[in-house]
Amino acid sequence: MVAIIDANLTRFGKRKENLLELAAEASLSLVRKYEIDFVVVSNTYSGEFNSISGINNLITTYLGMDSTPSIRVDNTSGSGGSAILVAKSLLDSRIANTVLVIGVEKMSDKNTKQVTSIIASLLSYEERRAGLTLPSLAGLMAKEYMRRYNAPRESFALVAVKNHLNGSLNPFAHIQKKVTLEEVLKAPVIAEPLTLYEFTPISDGAASLVIVRNEYAYSFTKKPVFIKGIGISSDTSIISERDDILNMNAVRRAGIIAKREAKVEKVDFAELHDMATILEIVEAEELGLLSKGEGWKAYYENYTAINGEMPINTSGGLNAKGHPIGASGVAQAVEAFLQIRNEAGSRQVKNARTGLSLSMAGFGNSATVIIYGDEP
Amino acid sequence: MVAIIDANLTRFGKRKENLLELAAEASLSLVRKYEIDFVVVSNTYSGEFNSISGINNLITTYLGMDSTPSIRVDNTSGSGGSAILVAKSLLDSRIANTVLVIGVEKMSDKNTKQVTSIIASLLSYEERRAGLTLPSLAGLMAKEYMRRYNAPRESFALVAVKNHLNGSLNPFAHIQKKVTLEEVLKAPVIAEPLTLYEFTPISDGAASLVIVRNEYAYSFTKKPVFIKGIGISSDTSIISERDDILNMNAVRRAGIIAKREAKVEKVDFAELHDMATILEIVEAEELGLLSKGEGWKAYYENYTAINGEMPINTSGGLNAKGHPIGASGVAQAVEAFLQIRNEAGSRQVKNARTGLSLSMAGFGNSATVIIYGDEP
Repeated sequence: MVAIIDANLTRFGKRKENLLELAAEASLSLVRKYEIDFVVVSNTYSGEFNSISGINNLITTYLGMDSTPSIRVDNTSGSGGSAILVAKSLLDSRIANTVLVIGVEKMSDKNTKQVTSIIASLLSYEERRAGLTLPSLAGLMAKEYMRRYNAPRESFALVAVKNHLNGSLNPFAHIQKKVTLEEVLKAPVIAEPLTLYEFTPISDGAASLVIVRNEYAYSFTKKPVFIKGIGISSDTSIISERDDILNMNAVRRAGIIAKREAKVEKVDFAELHDMATILEIVEAEELGLLSKGEGWKAYYENYTAINGEMPINTSGGLNAKGHPIGASGVAQAVEAFLQIRNEAGSRQVKNARTGLSLSMAGFGNSATVIIYGDEP
Repeated sequence: MVAIIDANLTRFGKRKENLLELAAEASLSLVRKYEIDFVVVSNTYSGEFNSISGINNLITTYLGMDSTPSIRVDNTSGSGGSAILVAKSLLDSRIANTVLVIGVEKMSDKNTKQVTSIIASLLSYEERRAGLTLPSLAGLMAKEYMRRYNAPRESFALVAVKNHLNGSLNPFAHIQKKVTLEEVLKAPVIAEPLTLYEFTPISDGAASLVIVRNEYAYSFTKKPVFIKGIGISSDTSIISERDDILNMNAVRRAGIIAKREAKVEKVDFAELHDMATILEIVEAEELGLLSKGEGWKAYYENYTAINGEMPINTSGGLNAKGHPIGASGVAQAVEAFLQIRNEAGSRQVKNARTGLSLSMAGFGNSATVIIYGDEP
């Protein structure tokens, strides 16, 4: 297996820097420190958002790494997890010894309407033509969850309250401001019943990791963070064809694979893909972090808070930290790196020795689950 | 190492089918025959050309492979080679056992001017703003080659004559029509001195491979085609910063790595990246297939013809077969598969036991060289 020996990220938010500058901000210190021999760039929309192609080669040129091979790995919102999976493969196969993974996206070049429309291009033609968007799917999911499990509408809003509190403790988060339950509930509705604070903002940002095979990890750092297990799975892209909108098959299957490989049942914290608040709850249930149909109750009991039994999205999650598409999955690994090294500052989870991240494409079209630990 | 156990492709050309239909045409028979457990999609411009993202998940859904994990690998024109490299890594790392690589691009949704402009988005900002395009770089390279090596202008045109002859023998080629030297020379100039017939047409198409680890290869077929070596390297994306426009460093380095790994010095045929005729000559020199500065002479001696000493682009190359960006590098491997299995019909190279392909991004910004053989 492989280990993360160093990590870095930019502040997420509306940034004036361009795509290359953001990538450099997250990686230049790492490039100077290590002999990188492969760069995997996690990015989805450089063409649509920034009119740039060949982004991986442009980044290595910008970083002065002319002869270092690179590729771009894309899996829409789940690109980060897929890029880490590819980095691990390149290391296992001995094609590379020291891989730099750079997740980057510059979204604020477009306005909200354009961004929503571009992201909806991952839906099937029929559903897209019907006017479906990812936020509208989240609204449908929330309503079905409330109906089936008698969950109060407030339970989703509590996810936003918790994640904004965590974001307020994260100097790299897009939104570093707490919100109250009342503020969430009274905010403009985006997709009934979910409001503005329950969705990710449109963010720019980049995150980087240096990954090596386990045997070299301790030669670089006393505190490597090991990737103990990694699982990837998929589900149909046609959401209306799924048996049940509350079943996220790709998430569940990826979690089973990762936990089996890691030989880990319980983790000390998790970073989930909370593109919308309801998703955090359903994902946590699919991954066995919360009980099926009862996940919402945890949010009334502080159970998922930083000092709770099962801390979720200590970074602020996509909800408050922001969701620069290609960077998000990589930034989740950065948070795991900091937590397990006991370097997460005021949002540190006590005795964080194992963690989990879920990097997800579309509406569970693809999912990569990674288990991290302080030992191999 | 790994082996190709089956391969397929669509006819290249202006096709009425959409991106998903092309991908399916190339892969459906393979999906029905093998238990694929990972799909790597090689594609660059689904967003820019077709307003589609999440193409890998849409393809697996379209093929009825809902739970099969997939990713998109992009390296612009060199995506195919990079996708095969990633497939090999996934197999080596045991993340997958049977990988389907699908290269696909649907370019004819845009007109020539739009396509040229979109592809120019891989150039550095400064060079792009200066109006540079890939064809114009090829023109500059051709002029410098003529000046330095006293090469006649006709020598480049002879590349097109040879590749169109080969294309006329390939039922999957975009252009299946021979051209004479005179026709090439008298065609409209695209980038002085190179004419229309010396560049790739704008093509739609898809190509697919099934790849497994060597130990399983013979359980699927009596004639697996082994990947004996694979090398990837890069060069600066800022072409004007290179010491010498005739040095393709990424190509040379990738070739050295691949040949060293394969323990092969001489190959029986090669598929090169002839986006423009001049490139085939310079690449062949960098790869040691032709002598430096004297490559052009080979085209007066039938040396690179199918029945010559060093057959190059038996498929017709990008020049006549066409260059659907994401499909090209995969289609090169399909040609190698057919040649080594003695299934290339009227363009069969006698005793073809080893072959080489060069999949290249931009103007040598990245290069992947693969060596194929009939034994591991």
